[in-house]
Amino acid sequence: MLKPLGDRIIIEQIQSEEKTASGIVLPDSAQEKPQEGKVVAVGTGRVTENGEKVALEVKEGDSIIFSKYAGTEVKYEGTDYLILRESDVLAIIG
Amino acid sequence: MLKPLGDRIIIEQIQSEEKTASGIVLPDSAQEKPQEGKVVAVGTGRVTENGEKVALEVKEGDSIIFSKYAGTEVKYEGTDYLILRESDVLAIIG
Amino acid sequence: MLKPLGDRIIIEQIQSEEKTASGIVLPDSAQEKPQEGKVVAVGTGRVTENGEKVALEVKEGDSIIFSKYAGTEVKYEGTDYLILRESDVLAIIG
Amino acid sequence: MLKPLGDRIIIEQIQSEEKTASGIVLPDSAQEKPQEGKVVAVGTGRVTENGEKVALEVKEGDSIIFSKYAGTEVKYEGTDYLILRESDVLAIIG
Amino acid sequence: MLKPLGDRIIIEQIQSEEKTASGIVLPDSAQEKPQEGKVVAVGTGRVTENGEKVALEVKEGDSIIFSKYAGTEVKYEGTDYLILRESDVLAIIG
Amino acid sequence: MLKPLGDRIIIEQIQSEEKTASGIVLPDSAQEKPQEGKVVAVGTGRVTENGEKVALEVKEGDSIIFSKYAGTEVKYEGTDYLILRESDVLAIIG
Amino acid sequence: MLKPLGDRIIIEQIQSEEKTASGIVLPDSAQEKPQEGKVVAVGTGRVTENGEKVALEVKEGDSIIFSKYAGTEVKYEGTDYLILRESDVLAIIG
Repeated sequence: MLKPLGDRIIIEQIQSEEKTASGIVLPDSAQEKPQEGKVVAVGTGRVTENGEKVALEVKEGDSIIFSKYAGTEVKYEGTDYLILRESDVLAIIG
Repeated sequence: MLKPLGDRIIIEQIQSEEKTASGIVLPDSAQEKPQEGKVVAVGTGRVTENGEKVALEVKEGDSIIFSKYAGTEVKYEGTDYLILRESDVLAIIG
Repeated sequence: MLKPLGDRIIIEQIQSEEKTASGIVLPDSAQEKPQEGKVVAVGTGRVTENGEKVALEVKEGDSIIFSKYAGTEVKYEGTDYLILRESDVLAIIG
Repeated sequence: MLKPLGDRIIIEQIQSEEKTASGIVLPDSAQEKPQEGKVVAVGTGRVTENGEKVALEVKEGDSIIFSKYAGTEVKYEGTDYLILRESDVLAIIG
Repeated sequence: MLKPLGDRIIIEQIQSEEKTASGIVLPDSAQEKPQEGKVVAVGTGRVTENGEKVALEVKEGDSIIFSKYAGTEVKYEGTDYLILRESDVLAIIG
Repeated sequence: MLKPLGDRIIIEQIQSEEKTASGIVLPDSAQEKPQEGKVVAVGTGRVTENGEKVALEVKEGDSIIFSKYAGTEVKYEGTDYLILRESDVLAIIG
Repeated sequence: MLKPLGDRIIIEQIQSEEKTASGIVLPDSAQEKPQEGKVVAVGTGRVTENGEKVALEVKEGDSIIFSKYAGTEVKYEGTDYLILRESDVLAIIG
């Protein structure tokens, strides 16, 4: 598995199927990027200038809303992931 | 519900109905974005470089004035929200 | 009333009436914006990276000189206010 | 009087009369702005991220050299002042 | 051997052979740079503003995913290395 | 005399006479600015965010090499000085 | 000798002679600048915001690899040196 570093988290993006009025499924390029994801791994936290480690608020399994275009896309063992910093997470759903 | 992270808050925007002299209700694109909102959720606070968590001044239920264009718009279960950082809040009304 | 957050203050601008040589009162657009104001509310102070709250030097009722173009204009219950950060205040008059 | 905030100081600029070879006094726009001033008021000091107040090195009455173009010009009771941050002061004369 | 300083690490890039549909091996310029590497040396850690040394999370021998284009390429004794800061490491594989 | 503030120092520039092959002394505009100077005064040191004063390494009388184009030129009682921050000093000679 | 300040180091660049296929030695302008050097002097270390001095990892005599184009070139008593900050040093060789 992938283990993110510091204040990074790894998510799988949740993409709802989108159709046009006539029912045609749109290719990725024709719609906005999704903003929702499921957390699959979290880092151990960032270290402050005081040398203290601050644990993440986000936990594995959380569904989150994140800033559009944030993070780096990674393909690992056939699955697409997005590696974000926790500061790119806007809110936890639930 | 949505749970904001760190020093973020979630608000619902309060939009007063605006009419032209002739009484026509203007579409969104024809007026300035509102600057008032009602807080529906607050994060647990930011962590300083000293590793200390600083609780937010803003509380759920507060009516606030915020910086125009600040934040990220999110639609959740049919309602539009705005996710802001507390630093985008100018003042609490009340 | 409006309650500013952190190191913000709310002021009412003091505008002296300006006349041309011929005695005509100039509209706003024809003169420089005022740089003097009266403080009507102050925040509880900024929080340093050490987690300490630093109270403001400026107090309600103070007359101040502030940086031209600083702050955000807000209309509240028919009155125009300006919300500034204390760092935009150059000096207290008196 | 004006009371500067934080690490700000208020100075009166010292302008030596400048003449051309033919003895004509040059208007302001034809010479460089002065870089010397006399301190008329000092703030109580800046507050570090540690929450500690650092008193200014500059004292009322000091003659100083400051960075050209630094500060904000203010007219108060008929006199022109310049409000600077102490960091714009290069050296004390004397 | 090379000994990286502070929060730097040295990696060897892992490049999978890439072929076109017709089986031709593509030259480097025709494909994206790899994003996977094996850690061959790590620094002793960064020093915070508090004067504390923070050890790296990444260890020698780790396989990592790193930000594309990060780091500096170095050729040493015939081998190509990449020197990165730990903050350029997105995740550890395994 | 001039007393520099904080982490500033005052130097006199040391300019070696430069001649062309034919022995003509070049005017200032035809050569690079000098990078060597003699320290004539030093400030009391910078104050860290921790509120601690850090004394300068450079002492009065030191010959130094400094970053080309750094600092502010000041003419005082007929002599040209350069006011630098200690961070513009590259090395002490001797 | 030159004594570097703070977190600066002084190095002599190590330039290997480069020849074209036909054995012609290339002039400097036709090759990349070297990235290897020998440390001839080190500063006493940087001072953190906490007021603590952090000694350098690099020692006199070390052979280092440094960031291309980093530092300032200085000629002293007929020898060319490069003054770098330790943060420009990528790795120590050996």
